[in-house]
Amino acid sequence: MARLTTPLTDFYAVIPAGGIGSRLWPLSRADAPKFLHDLTGSGSSLLKDTWDRLAPLAGEQRVMVVTGRAHRAAVEEQLPELADLNVVLESEPRDSSAAIGLAAAILEKREPGVIIGSFAADHVIKGTRFFNMAVAEAVEAARAGFIATIGIVPTEPAIGFGYIHATEETELEGAPSALKVDSFVEKPNAHTAEEYVESGDYLWNAGMFITKAAVLLEELAKTQPELHAGVVALAEVWDDHAKRGPAVDKIWPTLKKIAIDYAVAEPAAAAGKLVVIPGEFDWDDVGDFASIAKLHSSGYKKDLAILGEGARVLSDASSGILITDTGRTIALVGVKDIVVVDTPDALLVTTTANAQKVKSVVDALRISGRDDVL
Amino acid sequence: MARLTTPLTDFYAVIPAGGIGSRLWPLSRADAPKFLHDLTGSGSSLLKDTWDRLAPLAGEQRVMVVTGRAHRAAVEEQLPELADLNVVLESEPRDSSAAIGLAAAILEKREPGVIIGSFAADHVIKGTRFFNMAVAEAVEAARAGFIATIGIVPTEPAIGFGYIHATEETELEGAPSALKVDSFVEKPNAHTAEEYVESGDYLWNAGMFITKAAVLLEELAKTQPELHAGVVALAEVWDDHAKRGPAVDKIWPTLKKIAIDYAVAEPAAAAGKLVVIPGEFDWDDVGDFASIAKLHSSGYKKDLAILGEGARVLSDASSGILITDTGRTIALVGVKDIVVVDTPDALLVTTTANAQKVKSVVDALRISGRDDVL
Repeated sequence: MARLTTPLTDFYAVIPAGGIGSRLWPLSRADAPKFLHDLTGSGSSLLKDTWDRLAPLAGEQRVMVVTGRAHRAAVEEQLPELADLNVVLESEPRDSSAAIGLAAAILEKREPGVIIGSFAADHVIKGTRFFNMAVAEAVEAARAGFIATIGIVPTEPAIGFGYIHATEETELEGAPSALKVDSFVEKPNAHTAEEYVESGDYLWNAGMFITKAAVLLEELAKTQPELHAGVVALAEVWDDHAKRGPAVDKIWPTLKKIAIDYAVAEPAAAAGKLVVIPGEFDWDDVGDFASIAKLHSSGYKKDLAILGEGARVLSDASSGILITDTGRTIALVGVKDIVVVDTPDALLVTTTANAQKVKSVVDALRISGRDDVL
Repeated sequence: MARLTTPLTDFYAVIPAGGIGSRLWPLSRADAPKFLHDLTGSGSSLLKDTWDRLAPLAGEQRVMVVTGRAHRAAVEEQLPELADLNVVLESEPRDSSAAIGLAAAILEKREPGVIIGSFAADHVIKGTRFFNMAVAEAVEAARAGFIATIGIVPTEPAIGFGYIHATEETELEGAPSALKVDSFVEKPNAHTAEEYVESGDYLWNAGMFITKAAVLLEELAKTQPELHAGVVALAEVWDDHAKRGPAVDKIWPTLKKIAIDYAVAEPAAAAGKLVVIPGEFDWDDVGDFASIAKLHSSGYKKDLAILGEGARVLSDASSGILITDTGRTIALVGVKDIVVVDTPDALLVTTTANAQKVKSVVDALRISGRDDVL
C-alpha cells in the first residue's frame, strides 16, 4: 500500500472530546479533562496530538471536534486551525452515541455521502505511518458500505481493554487486511486475555469507527430511533444560528446516554456489517496512571517517570511515576512502583497496582460533596 | 517514694532547644525545627510539652531555655511563662556541650551550688509520675556529687538509640534505684540490640543529665579546657547587658562543637562519676517519621496516622503516617507503611522502613544549594 501523501477527499475526521478521565484524578478534572493534558511528554496535549494525526489525513478544514461548552476556549486555544464550523458544543455530556451521532447527522446534511472517522481525543498512538495505512483501508471499507473499526494487534494480554474477535477475511478492494468482526468482548480476566492473545484472533478495541455518516445514522435509527430522531432534528437546524440554540436546549438533554459501541458497533457486528482493520501501531488509552508510567518507562520498570515542567524532584531508590505542577520540591525515598500526583489543591499517592482504584476516590469525593476538587 | 507535690528547691531545669531534626524534613526546617512542632497530637509543641513536665518540678522561674536567636520569638510565644532571665540565645549552633556548659556556668554564677537538669526540647515522654520519680532520684544522686542520667528501660531492641550499660548498684541515699554507669554504647545492630535487651543490663540513652552545675563544669574543664574557659568567660559578663553582646560575638563562634555525651558523660562514666536512674516511663526521641507513626498507631500498624488540623484525607487500604498542613485534599490508595509529609513548598513520600534515609535527602538538598526548602 502506498504511503498517503494527500488527504482522503471524501473523509471527515470527528474527535469526540468528552470524557474527564476519572482514573487520572487529580490530574484530570471536570474543568481540565484528560484530553487537555500532555501525558506523553510530547509538549502538546493528547487532543493536539490527535489533531496532528488526523488533520493531514482529512485536511485541516475537515476535522470536527465535539466537546463540552466549558472546554470550548481551551480546545480552540490548543487547536488554532480548528474552523468554527467544526466546533460542536454539548450543553451537557450525553455519551458517545449522541456526540458521534450528531456529528454524523450534521456532516451528512452538509455533505451527503461523506465518510466520517471517529477517534478519541485522549488516546496515545505511536507509529503514524501504520495508523495512516489502517485509516486508508478503513475508509475503503466504509466506501464499500461497511462500518469499519481499527483493532490494535495486542502486544500483551492486557486486561484493561475490550477485545474484538475477528477471523473471517473479507477480500474487500482497497482493504486487503479487513476482517469481518464476529463480536466485541468486554475486558477479560488475565487468563482469558492470555487465551485471546495466544489465539491470534483478537484485537484491542480502540473505539475508532470509520463509516459513511449515512450508514451510521441508518444503524442508529434501527437500534435507537429516538436518539436518531433527536440528532437528525438538531442537524436540520444546526447551521441556522437562530434556531440552533433553542433546539439544543430542547432536544439535547432528552437524548439517551449510551456508548456508540452498544448503540451501533455491536448490533452492526451481529448483522455482519462491521469489519476491522488490524492496526500494527502502538496504541494506549492511557486510562490510568499505571499506563502513563508504562508509557514513560520505555520498558525500564525500575525508573521513575517524572512529568511536570520545572519539577524539582529528588528521587532515591524509587520507581513509578510522579506528576507535578506545583513547583514544590518533592523527595521520593525508597518507594517502588509509586504513583504521586501533586496538584495545587489535591494530592494522590498510590501504586501502579492500585491505579484502577483511583476512580473510587473520585466517586467517594463526589458522594461527600467535594466537587471543588473534582 | 512519695509523689512530688512541691518543686525541688535547689534544682534548675535547662532545655537545650537546638537541633533541627533533619530526619523530619520537610516538616522540620531551619526556621521551624522539630521542637516547635506538635508531633504527638497533644495540641502543643514538643517544647511546650517539655516545659509542662519541667516547670512543676523546678518552678516556672527556674526553667532555662537555650536556643538559636532565630527561634526566640517562637519560643517566647509558646512559653509565655518563660522569664527573660532564662532565655539564653545562641548566635549560631555550637552543639550541646557549649549550650549546656554555658547554661551551667551562668546558673552556677548566679546561684552557687545549684543542681541543673538538662532535658532535650524535642523528645516525647508519657508517664509523668514515673518521670518525676526518676528526676527526684537523679537530683539526690547529683546532690551526692554524681552526674546522674536517666536511662529508659527498653521496651524493644531498638536500633535507633544509644544504650547505657549499668549493673552495679550504688545504694545512694534518696536514689535507691541508681546504678553506676559502666559505659555508653553507640546505636547497635539488630542482633546486638536483642542481646542488650535480653541481658537486662542496658538502658536507652535519653540524653538527660542531672548534676551540680559545678561538677559539670569541673568535668568540662578537664576534657575541654578551652570550651570550659569560653563558657565561664561568657557567664562572667552574661548578666551585664552592655558586655554580653560583644562577649558572645567574640567567644561563641570559637567554641568547639562537641556533644555533651563525648565531652562530659563518657569521661565521667569512665571515672566512675556517672550514675543512671532507670526510667520506667514511655520515652521516644521521635527521631524519624517511623517513630512518629509508631507513636500514633497505638500498636495498630495497619492504621494510617494523620497529623494536621483540618486535613482532608481519603485513605483506602493504606497505613503509615500522613502529615499535612496545606489544606489540600489528599488521597492515599493501597499504600502500606507509607510516610507522606505535605507542606506548602515541599513534599516527601517514603516508607517507615526508609525513614532514617530522609537525612540524606536534606544533605542532598543542601549540597545542591536548595536552602530555600531546608
